[in-house]
Amino acid sequence: MSEVYATRRARLRERCNAAGTAAALISRPANVRYLSGAAPQGAVLLLGKCQDVLVCAVPPDDRPAEGRPDEALALQVLASPGGDPAVAAAGFADGQGAESLAVEEHHLTVARHRALSSVAPRLRLADLGSAVEQLRVVKDEEEISCLRIGAEIADQALGELLESILVGRTERHLALELERRLVDHGADGPAFPTSVATGPHSGRRGHRPTDRRVEEGDFLSVCLGATYRGYRCEIGRTFVIGTSPADWQIELYDLVFAAQRAGRESLAPGAAYRDVDRAARQVLDSAGYAEALPPLTGHGVGLENDEDPQLAPAAMGKLDACVPVTVEPGVHLPGRGGVRIDDTLVVRPEADGGPELLTITTKELLAL
Amino acid sequence: MSEVYATRRARLRERCNAAGTAAALISRPANVRYLSGAAPQGAVLLLGKCQDVLVCAVPPDDRPAEGRPDEALALQVLASPGGDPAVAAAGFADGQGAESLAVEEHHLTVARHRALSSVAPRLRLADLGSAVEQLRVVKDEEEISCLRIGAEIADQALGELLESILVGRTERHLALELERRLVDHGADGPAFPTSVATGPHSGRRGHRPTDRRVEEGDFLSVCLGATYRGYRCEIGRTFVIGTSPADWQIELYDLVFAAQRAGRESLAPGAAYRDVDRAARQVLDSAGYAEALPPLTGHGVGLENDEDPQLAPAAMGKLDACVPVTVEPGVHLPGRGGVRIDDTLVVRPEADGGPELLTITTKELLAL
Repeated sequence: MSEVYATRRARLRERCNAAGTAAALISRPANVRYLSGAAPQGAVLLLGKCQDVLVCAVPPDDRPAEGRPDEALALQVLASPGGDPAVAAAGFADGQGAESLAVEEHHLTVARHRALSSVAPRLRLADLGSAVEQLRVVKDEEEISCLRIGAEIADQALGELLESILVGRTERHLALELERRLVDHGADGPAFPTSVATGPHSGRRGHRPTDRRVEEGDFLSVCLGATYRGYRCEIGRTFVIGTSPADWQIELYDLVFAAQRAGRESLAPGAAYRDVDRAARQVLDSAGYAEALPPLTGHGVGLENDEDPQLAPAAMGKLDACVPVTVEPGVHLPGRGGVRIDDTLVVRPEADGGPELLTITTKELLAL
Repeated sequence: MSEVYATRRARLRERCNAAGTAAALISRPANVRYLSGAAPQGAVLLLGKCQDVLVCAVPPDDRPAEGRPDEALALQVLASPGGDPAVAAAGFADGQGAESLAVEEHHLTVARHRALSSVAPRLRLADLGSAVEQLRVVKDEEEISCLRIGAEIADQALGELLESILVGRTERHLALELERRLVDHGADGPAFPTSVATGPHSGRRGHRPTDRRVEEGDFLSVCLGATYRGYRCEIGRTFVIGTSPADWQIELYDLVFAAQRAGRESLAPGAAYRDVDRAARQVLDSAGYAEALPPLTGHGVGLENDEDPQLAPAAMGKLDACVPVTVEPGVHLPGRGGVRIDDTLVVRPEADGGPELLTITTKELLAL
């Protein structure tokens, strides 16, 4: 694996050199992990002029889920508790004779930035911007394999829940049980706080579970994901509780399903982000639900749950092959509830069979 | 409750005025909640020249656990998705004729700080520093009551775990079960990731649970906490698995217990932070464990799990009455394991009976 990280760092170094900085300081945890294989709490990565250094406040964890630092990196663990690895890294950069250092201004606080300046006043601080986030958008097959395993785990956890009695249980309990099952099946942990929404809450994106209990006739919408070796997938489904869904429930479900399918089918290398969003959105729009729509209908996944690209009306850019994204339109009707359907897929060219669906739980409207 | 928040904001406003700024922008979530009663995701609070405004990216949640925004505040929900409430708030401050705005430089990123400057170039940005964190150190009885309930919940969850069979179960499962029990008993959720450490892992501060199973003869150390209405308590205990602890286990336990008692007994209004730390630390030090000691032996708790004060050798400052802190010395012997004992207590004057212990689970060495 070591070569993978070295190659990633080499690509970033090219970008830095092209932008005129010889050294870069990576502080955003997912970016540190992407480039060095692990991100112990508070660790930063110095892409140095003559050596790359992973600077840690605490020694790297020995759990496989946390990853292992690339052995090609120098490893520095701060001796003094409470020290800032970023400040130490700026000192190293200065000691290596770097004249400029690109930092992640979207992650570093003003106070830390000032501390870097004061420890190394000769160093010119530049902005690295989201260079690492951009490198992370297209995944290699190793990364996709982690997402695929995470999706299998989430599918299993969800499948088991559906076999249990649901009526009378609270949203909070169902969410906790799902999270326990994710870990049972080998996840590092949940990819994000599991969302379970019943009745009038159903269909809300990111709904945080309450003490409301599942009732006969409810819509139940569930959104969960597993983290596997740091990679986070996402799946969302909506069910109906009881034997026969009401007409409005069937209609709303069919509509959201059609929107989600339109989104999925528009995934292709070269498709504009906004066109994928529009494909899903216009199905709901033309049925009169323009007001009830979320700001986005999907997003990238990887070392973070919500990463680039954003599939939204104003998003700029086009999909590439090997970009994993969610497609997750939904409609929530205040006071009544609603439907969300959410898959993780990998963009693949037509010749390879088109988009690869990672989350394979059925999207039929199940009555539980 | 509204008066409480208004009073807190009035105290902060005095500090700002004394420092020469008419307006302040609060962005750190715990600080926003402290001053406004709630902190919807991404929300910021503008302490304005003529009006205080809670600026939200999403509408406030309706779950009691999230708190409710003080009705005396103006509430603004951004219309456009992806907008930055801090940037909008700077615009409001500018519109109210403020000339300067104090911001939390230890929380705002460089990129957001720059965005504020560009939306309101006439506004001089100053640093609010940790003014709100300082206000938060001394708690009122309402806050202490939330911590007390949280501690009761954690005691209950821990007590139930001790009645179950432990041998053969993994650290990860025990941690998940504890978190489920916290929620069962009414917690909003865990106060921090529950730590369960067995055998050679035991006694490590912040150990993250692994797949190691509990074995006969192990030390088992557990650290957990409940969040109740936003307030986070903490309790840690170490047990021994099997009928009779080994001599080294009894000796080490007695030593850490003595250190923890010394720390607890030194809690009093006016006691220097470093003296509380030293009281606990020197017991371990004089037994030859100087190398194995953690950087701090306790810390404040409240809306965050790890807040001011730090009870550490270099900490400056003195305890006040009504400051809740943890006292949590521990020793970890690499390869063998160790002991941590952790309580949450509220500093009270001698006349009121001395420090109030919130976490009342026994500290006898239980063999389970």
